[in-house]
Amino acid sequence: MNKQPIGFLDSGVGGLTVVKEAMRQLPHEKIIFIGDQARIPYGPRPQQQVIEFTKELTQFLLKKQIKMLVIACNTATAEALSTIKPQLDIPVVGVILPGSRAAIKATRNQHIGIIGTEGTVKSDAYARVIQSKSKHIQVFSIAAPKFVPIVESNEYRSVLAKKVVAETLEPFKQHPVDTLVMGCTHYPLLRPLIQNVMGPRVKLIDPGAETASEVSTLLDYFDIANDDQEYQPVHEFYTTGSTKMFAEIAGDWLNMPDIKPQHVALQAIKLNQVGVES
Amino acid sequence: MNKQPIGFLDSGVGGLTVVKEAMRQLPHEKIIFIGDQARIPYGPRPQQQVIEFTKELTQFLLKKQIKMLVIACNTATAEALSTIKPQLDIPVVGVILPGSRAAIKATRNQHIGIIGTEGTVKSDAYARVIQSKSKHIQVFSIAAPKFVPIVESNEYRSVLAKKVVAETLEPFKQHPVDTLVMGCTHYPLLRPLIQNVMGPRVKLIDPGAETASEVSTLLDYFDIANDDQEYQPVHEFYTTGSTKMFAEIAGDWLNMPDIKPQHVALQAIKLNQVGVES
Repeated sequence: MNKQPIGFLDSGVGGLTVVKEAMRQLPHEKIIFIGDQARIPYGPRPQQQVIEFTKELTQFLLKKQIKMLVIACNTATAEALSTIKPQLDIPVVGVILPGSRAAIKATRNQHIGIIGTEGTVKSDAYARVIQSKSKHIQVFSIAAPKFVPIVESNEYRSVLAKKVVAETLEPFKQHPVDTLVMGCTHYPLLRPLIQNVMGPRVKLIDPGAETASEVSTLLDYFDIANDDQEYQPVHEFYTTGSTKMFAEIAGDWLNMPDIKPQHVALQAIKLNQVGVES
Repeated sequence: MNKQPIGFLDSGVGGLTVVKEAMRQLPHEKIIFIGDQARIPYGPRPQQQVIEFTKELTQFLLKKQIKMLVIACNTATAEALSTIKPQLDIPVVGVILPGSRAAIKATRNQHIGIIGTEGTVKSDAYARVIQSKSKHIQVFSIAAPKFVPIVESNEYRSVLAKKVVAETLEPFKQHPVDTLVMGCTHYPLLRPLIQNVMGPRVKLIDPGAETASEVSTLLDYFDIANDDQEYQPVHEFYTTGSTKMFAEIAGDWLNMPDIKPQHVALQAIKLNQVGVES
């Protein structure tokens, strides 16, 4: 029995798509989430900066006595996981491996599409993992830099969103992908629009949902699951940005209309930075 | 890139149901399997003896430089996993946690049935794991001691098998289970007979197949998967019993008609016992 919380970090609110699935699969686990909305987007930033920001958020969560860290952000997973994981003595999980395994399992015609931020697409992280496991699979990746701002500004059901999604995914018309990885945790909020453009036969992979299953497996493997079923966890949500905007999206997306996100100043995040060495 | 083999152990041939699934999901991983047919069944034995036998098989596999150990036997998982896992510095996986998670995910009416050996049922391992995760689930367990000898003697398609399965599962008529865990790695060979008695609406859970997915997750987590896709592994199969009987069942079950199992004398197994302390 281990009631310590699980820490989730993201560049913004997108990681809540992973949290939502974790809350469903692991109802007795307490979750602490931090979104770095003050510095979003991470996608276009240089790798060294993404590593630095990710370490700062990690340090904030470690102070909350987390028992496991979930990097609920594709850019941070692609750029920073391999640096951070060996430095911590708790399990660290990213979203790219679970998403890649699910895509390989799903494809029938061996053509997988990836959409992600510039950082994720430039890192080629999905293609490298997928082709290391099955070199016969063709991977076709597209950066979708306009998707994150649309979600973060809570316009993901707008006419603008529909137009941007259609334009961005246009190049897939030339590629026979039967499986598309939504390689950024913000994208599942655009799922209906994406499915509409890709057509009903294309299987959409949500790496966040796959990651929640991996969290469950590792909690058991390391024997750190909380099995006290009387425990009703009170989750904590932090943002370096606007709590109002966070509450609107999270309230809607997580169906938690009374969510009370707390603001954390960037300065506090930076001063906290001890224990994770560069 | 790590070409070391994965070790699988079982009391007999049942663990081959896990191997079959691992071969499908992980075609570039070399597998070394040992079945302790000379001392089967493990089910009715005292716990201390199951621990001792499992350690001996583990030691045999460790000498083969395995990078991960899969206890592909429900009785050995229930009785010996918690003793052996902390003693090794490679990942150790059993079949009960993956099977339990899959059963919880599958049930709709919160009534789960378990069939297993006397040892597994007496240990109450499945019920304890399932109820620690979801106390509202009713678990109804039945020991099926006659199933293992039927499979090991290659009679699993016989009229006798049909009769034994029907008689053993009779008590489930009084219990509204919608999910049945085949809690012994031998039982999937009896799957058509079991499904026939339980009816088409009961979901059968094969913990071995679930375990193969967990092996895949952990190979990635610990970064020890073999990603050399040119590598065509030559698997190795050992038995402490009759290689003839082993080859018949394995050839049929794994669709490997030219399988060449090797005999290992129990005496050799025992003399090898170093490194795993009691």
